Amino acid sequence: MRKIAVLGIGQIKIDEHWEKSLREIGGEAAFAAMQDAGVDKVDSLFVGNMLSPLVSGQNQLGTFFADWVGLWHQEAVKIEAACGSGAAAFRAGLMAVASGDIESALIIGVEKMTDKAGHDITAALATAADADYEVEQGISFVGLNALVMRRYMHEFGWKHEDFAPFSINAHANAMYNSYARLHEKISVEKFERSSMIATPINLLDASPVGDGAAAVVIVPAERVASFKGKPRITVAGSASATDTIAIHSRKDSLFLSAAYQSSKRAYEMAGLKPEDIDVFELHDAFSIMSALSLEASGFAGRGQGVRLGLDNEISPKGRVPICTRGGLKARGHPVGATGIYQIVEVIQQLRGECGQTQVEGAQIGMTQNIGGAGATILTHIFNVE
Amino acid sequence: MRKIAVLGIGQIKIDEHWEKSLREIGGEAAFAAMQDAGVDKVDSLFVGNMLSPLVSGQNQLGTFFADWVGLWHQEAVKIEAACGSGAAAFRAGLMAVASGDIESALIIGVEKMTDKAGHDITAALATAADADYEVEQGISFVGLNALVMRRYMHEFGWKHEDFAPFSINAHANAMYNSYARLHEKISVEKFERSSMIATPINLLDASPVGDGAAAVVIVPAERVASFKGKPRITVAGSASATDTIAIHSRKDSLFLSAAYQSSKRAYEMAGLKPEDIDVFELHDAFSIMSALSLEASGFAGRGQGVRLGLDNEISPKGRVPICTRGGLKARGHPVGATGIYQIVEVIQQLRGECGQTQVEGAQIGMTQNIGGAGATILTHIFNVE
Repeated sequence: MRKIAVLGIGQIKIDEHWEKSLREIGGEAAFAAMQDAGVDKVDSLFVGNMLSPLVSGQNQLGTFFADWVGLWHQEAVKIEAACGSGAAAFRAGLMAVASGDIESALIIGVEKMTDKAGHDITAALATAADADYEVEQGISFVGLNALVMRRYMHEFGWKHEDFAPFSINAHANAMYNSYARLHEKISVEKFERSSMIATPINLLDASPVGDGAAAVVIVPAERVASFKGKPRITVAGSASATDTIAIHSRKDSLFLSAAYQSSKRAYEMAGLKPEDIDVFELHDAFSIMSALSLEASGFAGRGQGVRLGLDNEISPKGRVPICTRGGLKARGHPVGATGIYQIVEVIQQLRGECGQTQVEGAQIGMTQNIGGAGATILTHIFNVE
Repeated sequence: MRKIAVLGIGQIKIDEHWEKSLREIGGEAAFAAMQDAGVDKVDSLFVGNMLSPLVSGQNQLGTFFADWVGLWHQEAVKIEAACGSGAAAFRAGLMAVASGDIESALIIGVEKMTDKAGHDITAALATAADADYEVEQGISFVGLNALVMRRYMHEFGWKHEDFAPFSINAHANAMYNSYARLHEKISVEKFERSSMIATPINLLDASPVGDGAAAVVIVPAERVASFKGKPRITVAGSASATDTIAIHSRKDSLFLSAAYQSSKRAYEMAGLKPEDIDVFELHDAFSIMSALSLEASGFAGRGQGVRLGLDNEISPKGRVPICTRGGLKARGHPVGATGIYQIVEVIQQLRGECGQTQVEGAQIGMTQNIGGAGATILTHIFNVE
């Protein structure tokens, strides 16, 4: 496959942007990425979004944003894979440029969530699950994740507080990321005292909703010799895999087989192993997902993902740095935008722009974006050349 | 770009399928295409759909259908470009296989519309337009097309009945298509007496909603030497282009610039001209769109698209055969599925399987799928090798 480089990145602070519309937040991230890339035009636009039909009454976001950011007549399309929409849009753009039919792509991940009240958003997020066999029974998306977490605790003997390090690490790192939704250090005590949402998931196990947008510009690697003194960063591995949409259909509800498959394929494509990864932006929508993602991607044995947190291995100075900019937990989780935030953050790490949470000497970074309760999982590996 | 062949096609009758769920109708079309292709597994799945979050409370249709049709662990994603979602999904699959990263793709276009009442569907379809600047003013999607049609009649001096041949041709051809939604011959008198929807668009200017699904299987052309005595059909041209999402933003609201751009690029890629096209499945969501599509794609001069109908050139025996299986008008318009129905129908023509409406000796066919009021337009050209 043709080698592709990430030329520019952009993002906005995740927040309750009641003063800005869907097109404004997506446009800000797009312009930031194009400015960073030093281009004012690209061949194509791929937009990752999950909720705009339900929250903003707006479909056709490809053309909607091509129009808004001045890419008139260019190709544009929207990609949706629930909370995995961002990385799915990135991969669609990657395939398109890799095909040789187009020479550049802007990929925007964007989500406006706070224009609707909480119960509407809860219902909208539940469209990621199986409408006929899960949601119809009355369960919410957090409820599904709660079932998985409870089973994991039962099966492997962990207590709720054992998950605290994931959230503490995310919150600690977000303190140094001005784009993050939450800037608040937390402790084990605070974690344990937090309000219950769906037992055993409490408020500090769960990522916050928010309005956000992030964007990247990609081009064939041969077009990028060097760029403003920044390193050339290319896509070393890319893969997408699926599992059953309903968790009750899985032989093993505690193993993210789609994470296993997509990370396996991405490692193979890159010719790398888990131990080669310097920084890993994983999909900690709920603390249980951090553990499962680490296990399925080869960083911990079955049922041992939480140990990495307890052993203090997940901080920027640890063996497996995760959520170095705050993760979904504290940077925020504007669902369709999240996959692009992860990519932007890994590029920042590989450029050495992360200040207090910089992983020293990071040369290889990985992102993993999840749609549904482990149903669609995309893994990407980036490296400095 | 790597050359891609269409290996299999499948479709279901467009109807009010109250007895079947979203997954069932999409699954039927998918199984039909895989059976036609003689494969029981493919590398990836691309789903074109517009309305499932709003009508069925279901997102993440990529994984949803991969799960249902037994493509466990394979890559899957949903593509949305309003009524152009079908062709947009086809193009995404095409790019993915062309990239060399995957070796086969199943593309499903699917839409379940009749589970909601008419006013809900009218509101859902309006999400194709600009929510902030069009829909917020109270206009519906048919209303936007009515503005365009009225302006066209005023500008070029045509009467309403001059559009009748488009609908008459579509209904006549659908009589011989068992998958079509409507089987009813119509006349100029009937066309003129039909109920008004949004002046000047009446019921017989407009395509009917319906539940439908169609699917195709694509592979690299080098993998297909011959297939069960059927000709090898490859993708000769593929392009997607956009216009402003709101029609009031266009310098010329009567010219489909995205159709011009995407057909121009597709012709260039194929090394062909409009006169080389033997059959053209265009996007007659409303009769005015037939005229505008013919003009922008090089088959008629400005304001002269209707003349092709009046001169009897659009029938299967005419110079520019369109809507040979009934078009959106009579085959039906299950929005996200339509683009794949068009491709399936062109393949049927190139295979010589169209009986009474067969275009004699058809070797080159073109499809054009439109999202919104001309906002996203995809053109594909297929040929027999």
